[in-house]
Amino acid sequence: MTQTIFVLNGPNLNMLGKREPGIYGAATLADIEAACRQEAAALGFGLEFRQSNHEGDLVTWIQEAGERGALVLINPAAYTHTSIALQDAIRAAKVTVVEVHLSNIHAREAFRHNSFVSAVARGVLCGFGADGYVMGLRALAAFAGRDDAQAGKTQT
Amino acid sequence: MTQTIFVLNGPNLNMLGKREPGIYGAATLADIEAACRQEAAALGFGLEFRQSNHEGDLVTWIQEAGERGALVLINPAAYTHTSIALQDAIRAAKVTVVEVHLSNIHAREAFRHNSFVSAVARGVLCGFGADGYVMGLRALAAFAGRDDAQAGKTQT
Amino acid sequence: MTQTIFVLNGPNLNMLGKREPGIYGAATLADIEAACRQEAAALGFGLEFRQSNHEGDLVTWIQEAGERGALVLINPAAYTHTSIALQDAIRAAKVTVVEVHLSNIHAREAFRHNSFVSAVARGVLCGFGADGYVMGLRALAAFAGRDDAQAGKTQT
Amino acid sequence: MTQTIFVLNGPNLNMLGKREPGIYGAATLADIEAACRQEAAALGFGLEFRQSNHEGDLVTWIQEAGERGALVLINPAAYTHTSIALQDAIRAAKVTVVEVHLSNIHAREAFRHNSFVSAVARGVLCGFGADGYVMGLRALAAFAGRDDAQAGKTQT
Amino acid sequence: MTQTIFVLNGPNLNMLGKREPGIYGAATLADIEAACRQEAAALGFGLEFRQSNHEGDLVTWIQEAGERGALVLINPAAYTHTSIALQDAIRAAKVTVVEVHLSNIHAREAFRHNSFVSAVARGVLCGFGADGYVMGLRALAAFAGRDDAQAGKTQT
Amino acid sequence: MTQTIFVLNGPNLNMLGKREPGIYGAATLADIEAACRQEAAALGFGLEFRQSNHEGDLVTWIQEAGERGALVLINPAAYTHTSIALQDAIRAAKVTVVEVHLSNIHAREAFRHNSFVSAVARGVLCGFGADGYVMGLRALAAFAGRDDAQAGKTQT
Amino acid sequence: MTQTIFVLNGPNLNMLGKREPGIYGAATLADIEAACRQEAAALGFGLEFRQSNHEGDLVTWIQEAGERGALVLINPAAYTHTSIALQDAIRAAKVTVVEVHLSNIHAREAFRHNSFVSAVARGVLCGFGADGYVMGLRALAAFAGRDDAQAGKTQT
Amino acid sequence: MTQTIFVLNGPNLNMLGKREPGIYGAATLADIEAACRQEAAALGFGLEFRQSNHEGDLVTWIQEAGERGALVLINPAAYTHTSIALQDAIRAAKVTVVEVHLSNIHAREAFRHNSFVSAVARGVLCGFGADGYVMGLRALAAFAGRDDAQAGKTQT
Amino acid sequence: MTQTIFVLNGPNLNMLGKREPGIYGAATLADIEAACRQEAAALGFGLEFRQSNHEGDLVTWIQEAGERGALVLINPAAYTHTSIALQDAIRAAKVTVVEVHLSNIHAREAFRHNSFVSAVARGVLCGFGADGYVMGLRALAAFAGRDDAQAGKTQT
Amino acid sequence: MTQTIFVLNGPNLNMLGKREPGIYGAATLADIEAACRQEAAALGFGLEFRQSNHEGDLVTWIQEAGERGALVLINPAAYTHTSIALQDAIRAAKVTVVEVHLSNIHAREAFRHNSFVSAVARGVLCGFGADGYVMGLRALAAFAGRDDAQAGKTQT
Amino acid sequence: MTQTIFVLNGPNLNMLGKREPGIYGAATLADIEAACRQEAAALGFGLEFRQSNHEGDLVTWIQEAGERGALVLINPAAYTHTSIALQDAIRAAKVTVVEVHLSNIHAREAFRHNSFVSAVARGVLCGFGADGYVMGLRALAAFAGRDDAQAGKTQT
Amino acid sequence: MTQTIFVLNGPNLNMLGKREPGIYGAATLADIEAACRQEAAALGFGLEFRQSNHEGDLVTWIQEAGERGALVLINPAAYTHTSIALQDAIRAAKVTVVEVHLSNIHAREAFRHNSFVSAVARGVLCGFGADGYVMGLRALAAFAGRDDAQAGKTQT
Repeated sequence: MTQTIFVLNGPNLNMLGKREPGIYGAATLADIEAACRQEAAALGFGLEFRQSNHEGDLVTWIQEAGERGALVLINPAAYTHTSIALQDAIRAAKVTVVEVHLSNIHAREAFRHNSFVSAVARGVLCGFGADGYVMGLRALAAFAGRDDAQAGKTQT
Repeated sequence: MTQTIFVLNGPNLNMLGKREPGIYGAATLADIEAACRQEAAALGFGLEFRQSNHEGDLVTWIQEAGERGALVLINPAAYTHTSIALQDAIRAAKVTVVEVHLSNIHAREAFRHNSFVSAVARGVLCGFGADGYVMGLRALAAFAGRDDAQAGKTQT
Repeated sequence: MTQTIFVLNGPNLNMLGKREPGIYGAATLADIEAACRQEAAALGFGLEFRQSNHEGDLVTWIQEAGERGALVLINPAAYTHTSIALQDAIRAAKVTVVEVHLSNIHAREAFRHNSFVSAVARGVLCGFGADGYVMGLRALAAFAGRDDAQAGKTQT
Repeated sequence: MTQTIFVLNGPNLNMLGKREPGIYGAATLADIEAACRQEAAALGFGLEFRQSNHEGDLVTWIQEAGERGALVLINPAAYTHTSIALQDAIRAAKVTVVEVHLSNIHAREAFRHNSFVSAVARGVLCGFGADGYVMGLRALAAFAGRDDAQAGKTQT
Repeated sequence: MTQTIFVLNGPNLNMLGKREPGIYGAATLADIEAACRQEAAALGFGLEFRQSNHEGDLVTWIQEAGERGALVLINPAAYTHTSIALQDAIRAAKVTVVEVHLSNIHAREAFRHNSFVSAVARGVLCGFGADGYVMGLRALAAFAGRDDAQAGKTQT
Repeated sequence: MTQTIFVLNGPNLNMLGKREPGIYGAATLADIEAACRQEAAALGFGLEFRQSNHEGDLVTWIQEAGERGALVLINPAAYTHTSIALQDAIRAAKVTVVEVHLSNIHAREAFRHNSFVSAVARGVLCGFGADGYVMGLRALAAFAGRDDAQAGKTQT
Repeated sequence: MTQTIFVLNGPNLNMLGKREPGIYGAATLADIEAACRQEAAALGFGLEFRQSNHEGDLVTWIQEAGERGALVLINPAAYTHTSIALQDAIRAAKVTVVEVHLSNIHAREAFRHNSFVSAVARGVLCGFGADGYVMGLRALAAFAGRDDAQAGKTQT
Repeated sequence: MTQTIFVLNGPNLNMLGKREPGIYGAATLADIEAACRQEAAALGFGLEFRQSNHEGDLVTWIQEAGERGALVLINPAAYTHTSIALQDAIRAAKVTVVEVHLSNIHAREAFRHNSFVSAVARGVLCGFGADGYVMGLRALAAFAGRDDAQAGKTQT
Repeated sequence: MTQTIFVLNGPNLNMLGKREPGIYGAATLADIEAACRQEAAALGFGLEFRQSNHEGDLVTWIQEAGERGALVLINPAAYTHTSIALQDAIRAAKVTVVEVHLSNIHAREAFRHNSFVSAVARGVLCGFGADGYVMGLRALAAFAGRDDAQAGKTQT
Repeated sequence: MTQTIFVLNGPNLNMLGKREPGIYGAATLADIEAACRQEAAALGFGLEFRQSNHEGDLVTWIQEAGERGALVLINPAAYTHTSIALQDAIRAAKVTVVEVHLSNIHAREAFRHNSFVSAVARGVLCGFGADGYVMGLRALAAFAGRDDAQAGKTQT
Repeated sequence: MTQTIFVLNGPNLNMLGKREPGIYGAATLADIEAACRQEAAALGFGLEFRQSNHEGDLVTWIQEAGERGALVLINPAAYTHTSIALQDAIRAAKVTVVEVHLSNIHAREAFRHNSFVSAVARGVLCGFGADGYVMGLRALAAFAGRDDAQAGKTQT
Repeated sequence: MTQTIFVLNGPNLNMLGKREPGIYGAATLADIEAACRQEAAALGFGLEFRQSNHEGDLVTWIQEAGERGALVLINPAAYTHTSIALQDAIRAAKVTVVEVHLSNIHAREAFRHNSFVSAVARGVLCGFGADGYVMGLRALAAFAGRDDAQAGKTQT
């Protein structure tokens, strides 16, 4: 059965393209969704692409991903730095997560340097703009393949 | 008239039983609700048992409890450590609150040691697993009885 | 065309009047809305007056204000101190924002001294009670007039 | 008898108009004084408008205001962030104080975020440029009227 | 054979009832001992009830509890916040410990928020006044029963 | 009846005269006791002069002073900086306390700058060597006289 | 020749008696000056009693005291906590200084706990109200006597 | 002319495969070099693959890259967290840098969370093991292509 | 027309030569003034040489320098570390400032390591004793010459 | 006359062998005492071997060692990190002290990294288990021999 | 086959004997090498004795020690406090390390109290001067013997 | 015999002129060397002018300077802020050091404000660009002349 990847986008990412293009680039969220759909298809995965300004929605979607055995690519945006609930959700759902940021958050304000999500993510990508999403999908696919292989070996 | 106790559960607590049983135990939230219903009935209280992943829902429910003259047992989960809004809600609603945590948060990561709720709670319980909810209901009943007695004395 | 001012109120402000009158005064949110409607009309502006306990709603409304070319008067209440998402929303929406607090937050607990909103607000008002809203509306009108004049000069 | 408002200006404010217009605007201190005189007259208050580069002068003037039963509008400029003596003077003189800053100090360097004056001010205004002075005078007049009303009620 | 519970009380708790009743309530330590004796008997446990102003005595008694296979309910009072020796004693003695505080230490001065004991306690109770001791005894009994059951299962 | 003053000395003060005379002077604790006995007699007070290396003894003696309605002059030595138990004892015993240090602790290592006792002492003296004890006795006598006068006024 | 003692008073101390009597007592600065004049005469010292709201005046007066071979009793008030210039002046003037505070600054706000003057004072007194000045004069006289004796011994 | 990519490896990376495979995986540095060579060839870039335990060598190589107009993929290992010299080198050489870490440094010890290199890197990758190198090469190629396109547009 | 250099000296520098010669050397302020007058003459500049113990005087003199188009060599002494007003004055006056300290402040107490003046100075000199003043004058002259040259080039 | 070495053991060390053998090894305190007695005899020193859970006892014993001209080997256990009284005792007693820890405290929790004893110890040993005691005895003997030699040279 | 011990010396240790003899003693590095050679021979170990001012050399030598199955005695000198690379090298090489310092680093400046090496060392010695090296060699030999014994038991 | 001055340059200074001219100016290191050679000749000193990207090289060169009785002018660049080894080298070599920075490091990022070298330098110069080197050479010559004079006096 086809495995699904959830691509979850945090607050204000629906404003992409309209918002500070010097920092985030000119791509809109629709552009990114299109690129993700194309890449997911090429990699043989299903795709759920969602955005919310509510921390609680992101928590719920991570739980849903866990229940459906999906992988998660998440750009938690501002919640990256304040949401312990996201960290708990990832721990509880036991999903494989790749965290992605459009800009290089380490080169911005000090309050953007800490990430509660990174502590439970398998990999982190930042500064690659919209390309980071595609890179993240590929990395998730690679993790999935490798974990299956590993499981295969162990099962035999 | 029967007084009600609101039992409010924060983000990810709907995942109980599925989530890190080493830390949180094997009981599901439904198990806890059943135990609470039985205890509340025995103590002669009505019960509202709710869970949400949204900070705003918890705020609203505390306000509702205040308007209905109810008592509150709350496990704010991850919002314990980040929500000033919950503290404000409890102050504004003037409700009696007991805070409960399944695990001993003081023996976990440093960012789980601070609680914005504790500063306005009447009592705090942590580390007793699902039993903590029942202990908290009894404590609220005792507080209520004692406050009534106090009020009775004052009124005469 | 009439320009609109969004007056956005954060968590627990629906409790005004019932809540700690020693700190916040006796006016209810309905009283404040009435005063704002009267002042906005006098200044020749439309008015959207809203309140939510959800951080995500405030984020969404700021985006909406940006899209409608509106001005924003915001009392972010408890989210003042914890919401990077509000700061990002204001940056993204490129709206002119005046921040208002009923009480003097600098004379309260240390965790209320920092504001993530102030860093992107054009002006900040605190300690003037309900009057602060009317003062804020006037300031926004003045900013709008001045910016138009500025734009007029530049265009010629 | 006509009540007086002291408008006190801290160090370097005599340089206004010559100084960093990008931050502080083009108005000179004389322009601000003129606007204040006009507004005070309209509100029915006397006005003392002063500036000094000496912390000690500001302390002495606050004491004088207290002895004359005056109200105080103060822009402490750099002493905002370092002067415990100003805080003590306001406490000792028991005057009603509104603090005003031309620029939004919360959007500037971190060492400008703390104010020793705010802790004892009744209201704080920042970011409204020269208009902030006029807004502050009106707020002081409103406070005075309200306090009189309050006193009236209590006396009867 | 009857298992014993050590109830250990730290410095100044012998002053209870005479001391700040607004914070600690009117019950004396003798009242609390009586309540504990009654509850322990009802639960089928022996009881050692002790108090000392010496950190070293508390350390020694924890060691003794460990050697006698007892459970420990401890109110370390002021040593809560400064005694690494108590933490080491609990680790070394491998006893099950419930920590209890009469007042809600999290709503008091900042230096009372950290507990060196909590890090090695199984559960923590605070803010329930003298009732907290009885709640703690019941929780210890429950832990003991559950651990026996667990051990029973493992042994079979 | 003659009121008593407890003069309590913390750890290592029995070493005075042998210990770092550059910092603490050449007087022995016996010399200080003699000076205190003479001054207390002149002031018309009884005297208990004690020293211990045990924090718990100091706590117990403060409680004893409280029960006997005595005044306390204390040099807590090293426990000044680490003992919350001493602060609690003074609060619980409701005794009037003057804190004295032979050397000027503020001119020594940073870890000697904080005092848990100062927060509940009525007066603090440091740097006056053995004379500080005599000064402290006189200050306690003055406090006692003044409080009596105050009480006398209130009672009439 | 008669040696002089400078009694120097920092900002707002001219307000004594009018200011927060709960904290500072009812004595005015004139009362304190009178008590100091009487005590200085009794001890055989001349007296310079001064007050200023200017940090620079206090610096200048300390220099003057040094040049006249005087002793200094100083209540630096708010400048206690912020003035490195006072510390430098005392170091440069090589005067013997006793620091006095009317209230117990260690029992007040955290920003009042640090003193730049204490590091170079010979003794510190706080919490004894107006009496502290008299105690300080006596202590300076004792220091002077002792230093003379010491010098006498060394010279022979 | 073929553009070159420098792949620079910091201290201890020559130990890969032998070192903590639980954290860093089983690939040796030779394996990674092989993968990089293959990918660089596919992307049409030349490759310099180097490792040193000396901070100074890494600084020199970055300068060399700058002079040759090369791109840089760097895994600074332990120097990530301590080397301001690397940051200066990247600034001075004006090279485009992608930073890569085998493990997710944000999920490790606190002293590994800060990176002096991230502040001047265009993108950062961590937690993808040896794959991160290949991802980084692709990202550099994409940056290069995009920059050329941009330059092309500007030049016309 | 001859350009002037203001040499401004902060608190206690009038004590030079009398003060801690181990740290500051044996030269008096008059010696330094003489050396400065000689050097300024040689460089073809006028000289204003002033000292004050008042922060406000230094602020005013910097403003005066700005109005007269002068250059500033300043030794702010103790105000270096506490005066935001000096920083603001330099910013407002837009003068070229060289900061000089007789001793190496970085080798002294931690509270002398921060300088609010350095952030707006063009150059900083410390540890060269009285020579530092002469070095500073030469540096100012060089800056002035270079800026003129620059301006000359730009004008053509 | 035979010189004595005091071997002093802090809280919980009487639990050795029973306590966390993974950290502290399997040797009991009696085993360590036996090894110390054997080594002291071989080195020609007398031995006092003591343990206490009371900070005050350790302080008293260090004083006793000082009075008997003995050397001290101390494992202060938990009091290492909290006892300023131990530091004062060592300073006052002027004894030569070697500090020993069974485990490597620097590889444990952060609150175990600071030692108040190290600042006054001549040497520190940690991580060598029970062998550390024997190493410490030898080091003390070497110090004693060397100091004697030194004294011998000086005396001639 | 004879096992080797690497004795590695960090920056400036080649200056021993010439350098601050008050802190480090009069022995030169050649003296220490001689003592080490003698002791190693007596213990039946080979010896590599090296010094470098380069952090990278120390990293490389630790790797070499790991590859040759050697033990390591290291005095990292200044790199103790700043080198994460040394910690990584020890982890990667899986060598048994004893850390030695000539002086008691805990009694020196605060920036010398932290050691990145201690966290991965088996034992730490400081304050024993040149003797510390010999003590360290013996401790390594003891560790080696014990580990062999352990391994022997396990293998059988 | 001619005394030599070592001019030592830290990492990336070989990039001067190519690197951020806005901060560091347009002069190359060769330009600076030429200016230094000319000035040293004029002052009658020999010159060693060196640059390295390796911390260890700078350490070694300082030692060499010490052995040759030379003076040192050092621009430690990035190692200024991280190298305790440089501080130790200067202490060990007992050389007179002047520290120079091209830019005003106090007006840059916070992590550039601390200097481990300043604590042991005799003088510090920053913000004078390439001129700072020439100023530093002159200051060293002055120090040398003065020290000789001093020594001359002492020897006679």
